[in-house]
Amino acid sequence: MTGWTTATSGGCGAPEPDDHLVDDEHAEDRKARAAWSRLAEPGDDAAHALVMTEGAIAALARVRAGGGERRWQSRLPGLDAENDLSVLEGLGGRLLIPSDPEWPEAIDALGVEAPFCLWVRGPLALAEATTRAAAIVGARAATPYGERVAADLADGCATRGITVISGAAYGIDGAAHRAALAAGGPTIAVLACGVEQAYPGGHTELINRIVAEGAVVSEVPPGSAPTRWRFIERNRLIAGLSRVTVVVEAAHRSGAMGTAARADKLSLPVAAVPGPVTSASSYGCHRLLRNGAVCVTSAEEVAELAGRIGEYLPETLPLPMAVHDGLGPVDLRVFDALPLRRPVGLRVLISTAGLEPDTVRAALGRLELRGLAARDGGGWRRTRAGKT
Amino acid sequence: MTGWTTATSGGCGAPEPDDHLVDDEHAEDRKARAAWSRLAEPGDDAAHALVMTEGAIAALARVRAGGGERRWQSRLPGLDAENDLSVLEGLGGRLLIPSDPEWPEAIDALGVEAPFCLWVRGPLALAEATTRAAAIVGARAATPYGERVAADLADGCATRGITVISGAAYGIDGAAHRAALAAGGPTIAVLACGVEQAYPGGHTELINRIVAEGAVVSEVPPGSAPTRWRFIERNRLIAGLSRVTVVVEAAHRSGAMGTAARADKLSLPVAAVPGPVTSASSYGCHRLLRNGAVCVTSAEEVAELAGRIGEYLPETLPLPMAVHDGLGPVDLRVFDALPLRRPVGLRVLISTAGLEPDTVRAALGRLELRGLAARDGGGWRRTRAGKT
Repeated sequence: MTGWTTATSGGCGAPEPDDHLVDDEHAEDRKARAAWSRLAEPGDDAAHALVMTEGAIAALARVRAGGGERRWQSRLPGLDAENDLSVLEGLGGRLLIPSDPEWPEAIDALGVEAPFCLWVRGPLALAEATTRAAAIVGARAATPYGERVAADLADGCATRGITVISGAAYGIDGAAHRAALAAGGPTIAVLACGVEQAYPGGHTELINRIVAEGAVVSEVPPGSAPTRWRFIERNRLIAGLSRVTVVVEAAHRSGAMGTAARADKLSLPVAAVPGPVTSASSYGCHRLLRNGAVCVTSAEEVAELAGRIGEYLPETLPLPMAVHDGLGPVDLRVFDALPLRRPVGLRVLISTAGLEPDTVRAALGRLELRGLAARDGGGWRRTRAGKT
Repeated sequence: MTGWTTATSGGCGAPEPDDHLVDDEHAEDRKARAAWSRLAEPGDDAAHALVMTEGAIAALARVRAGGGERRWQSRLPGLDAENDLSVLEGLGGRLLIPSDPEWPEAIDALGVEAPFCLWVRGPLALAEATTRAAAIVGARAATPYGERVAADLADGCATRGITVISGAAYGIDGAAHRAALAAGGPTIAVLACGVEQAYPGGHTELINRIVAEGAVVSEVPPGSAPTRWRFIERNRLIAGLSRVTVVVEAAHRSGAMGTAARADKLSLPVAAVPGPVTSASSYGCHRLLRNGAVCVTSAEEVAELAGRIGEYLPETLPLPMAVHDGLGPVDLRVFDALPLRRPVGLRVLISTAGLEPDTVRAALGRLELRGLAARDGGGWRRTRAGKT
C-alpha cells in the first residue's frame, strides 16, 4: 500500500468555511448542482454555461420560474435533489462541488464542459489522487496481450503512487483497475451511470472493491442509466481527471479513441501502446501513434507523463554487451584488422585497417587496456576475450 | 513482374559521351575510382574529400607520387584496379561512377560520404530503381512475426513497383528480399563485402537470385572481406539509396538502428513497425517511435513515404459499422432515448434525451430516414434494424 490520502469520512462532503451563512450557501450550491446534474445531460453546453455565469442556485431558480430551455423544464417534475443526496449518503458516498477542498482541480481544464458536480463513493481523496494520475483505457474486446500489458502498466503506476483511472469496462479497463488494486495502489473508476449501480454487471465485484479501496465517480445522479451518450461524455472525465491518457488496445471504433481525442483537446499527453500490426485490437493504437501519440512500452514511460514534470526520471536499462560494444570507429577498425591467431606487425595493421600509423598505435594501446588486443612477439593479435 | 528497367548489358558500364578523348578520360576516372575504393576504407572522409576536390585521377596520381596519407600508401603495393575491373567483368558485373547515367543520384545526398563508385551485379538499373525505393531492414535474430511483417511490406512494395533495398542478412533482410523476388518486383542487396562473395554463406542461393533478377551492390572491390566497420558504413548506402528506411524488428544493438540513424542524418524519413512491447526484438522499433519515427503498419503506409510526394495515396479501408455509427451527437441521444418495444411520446423523448422539442423532432426525422426509428401509434420506437 503506497501512502495515498483517504478522503474525509462519508457524508455529503464537509464544507470548509466556518461561517454559518457561508455554510448554508455552500449547502444550497451543493443541492443546486446535484439538481443540475439531473436536469441537464452531461456536456449540455448551454446548461454548463448558464451555471458557470449565473451560479447553480440562480440558474436553477430561473428554470423553476419557467425560464431556460424546455429540455430542462421537461425534467423538473421528477426532480428531488435532496432525495438523491440522501440516497448517496445512504451508500456512504459524497457529492463534490468545485468549492470543496477535495474537488479535483485538474478537471477544471474542461472549462465549460466541466461537470456540475461529482458523485463519489470510496475512500480515495480525489484532489490529491489526481495530481499524479494516468488513464489506462482500451478495448472491451481486449486480447490476452492487451490485458497483460494493461496490468503491467497499472501495476507499475500503482507501485509508484500514480492513480490508475479507467472506466470499469471489460477488457483493458478491468485489467488496469485489478492490477492497481492488487498492488495496493490508488484507482478511480469513472462510470457513465449512477454510482449506486455496478456497470457492467459482470464487474460488480470489481466495482465494489474499488468502492471499498479507491473511488467510484460519476457526474450523473443515482438511478441514471448508462446511455451511449453518457459513455461518450464520461470519457472526457476520464481524460480530464488524468495527467496522461494511455490507450493500450483499441479497435478503430473503440471508446478509448474518444478518450484519447478528449485528452488531446485538453492539450494533455496521449500515449499509445504498440502491438502486433497483425492484431486488429492494436489498430487504434497505431493510428494514434501515426498521429503523434507518445509510444509507451513500460510503466516507467507512463510515469514520466503522469506526474509533475521531472518527478519520475527514467531508469537506465542494463543492456547486454558484446566485447566490441562502445569501441569508437577507429578502435573498431583496428580490432577488426587484428588476427585471431598469428600476430601481425604494425605495417599490416595500417594497411588492413586503412588508418594512419599513429592512429593504429593509439588504438592498439586502448584495445590492450580493454584486454582485447595483446602484443605477441613483434606483432599484435586479439586476446581470448576479443574472440567473439 | 512490374515494369522495372533493366540495366544496359554487362561489361564495366558504357560511357555516355561519344567523343574519344572524353571516353578515355571517363575510362580513366572509372579506373581511378575503382582504385580509390581499394585504397581507402568506406567513410574515409579525407580520401573522399580529396577525390571530391581534386578528382579521382589527380588524387590517385598524388598518392602514387608518395603524397597523401600513409594508410593509402600502405595499400598501393597490391593495387591493380584493372584486374579488379576484369574480375567484375568476368562476373557479368559493372562499375558505376557518378558520371554514369545509371548512377543513383539519391546517394549523392551522402555528400563527402558518397562512395567513390559502386560495384554492381544484376540486371536492375539503379538510377531508376532508386527513385521509388524503401529500405526494409531489421534484426538477424528476427521473430516469425517480424519476418512475416517484413515479407508483407516487401510484397506490397514490390507489387507497387517500389524497390526493396536491404542488406541480405538473415532474418528481416532475407524475408524482405525473398518476398520482393516472389512478387516479381525490384530488389537491391547492398553488401559489406565484394560482390563476388555471398555473405552470409547461408544466403548464397538468395544472393545469386538477386544477382539474376535484381541488383547486388557494394562500394568495396572484389575480394574485400565484410568487416564490422564495413557493415556500419554499408548501412549508410542502404539509407542513402532509399527514400525511406523502415525498421521492422530491431533489438537495442541492431545494425538496423544504425541504418535508421544514417537515414535520419540524411533528413530521410525513418519508419518503424510496432510490435508487442513484450518482445525484445521490437525494442529498437519502439525506441525509434519514441524518438519521432513514423509508425508504419502496412505496405500502403510505406509506399506513401517511398515514392515521390503524392504518388501513392492511401486507400480507404472498409470498416465494419454498427447501426449507430455516423450518427451525430443529437441523433445518438435521441436514438438512445428510443425504447425498443413500447413506443413513447415526444414529451418523454425530450426529457429522456435532454434535448429541445424541435431538436428531437428533427432527429426523429433523420433516424426515420435511416430506418432506425419508426412511428408507432402516437409515439416512437426503434425499428428492428435499430435493435443493437
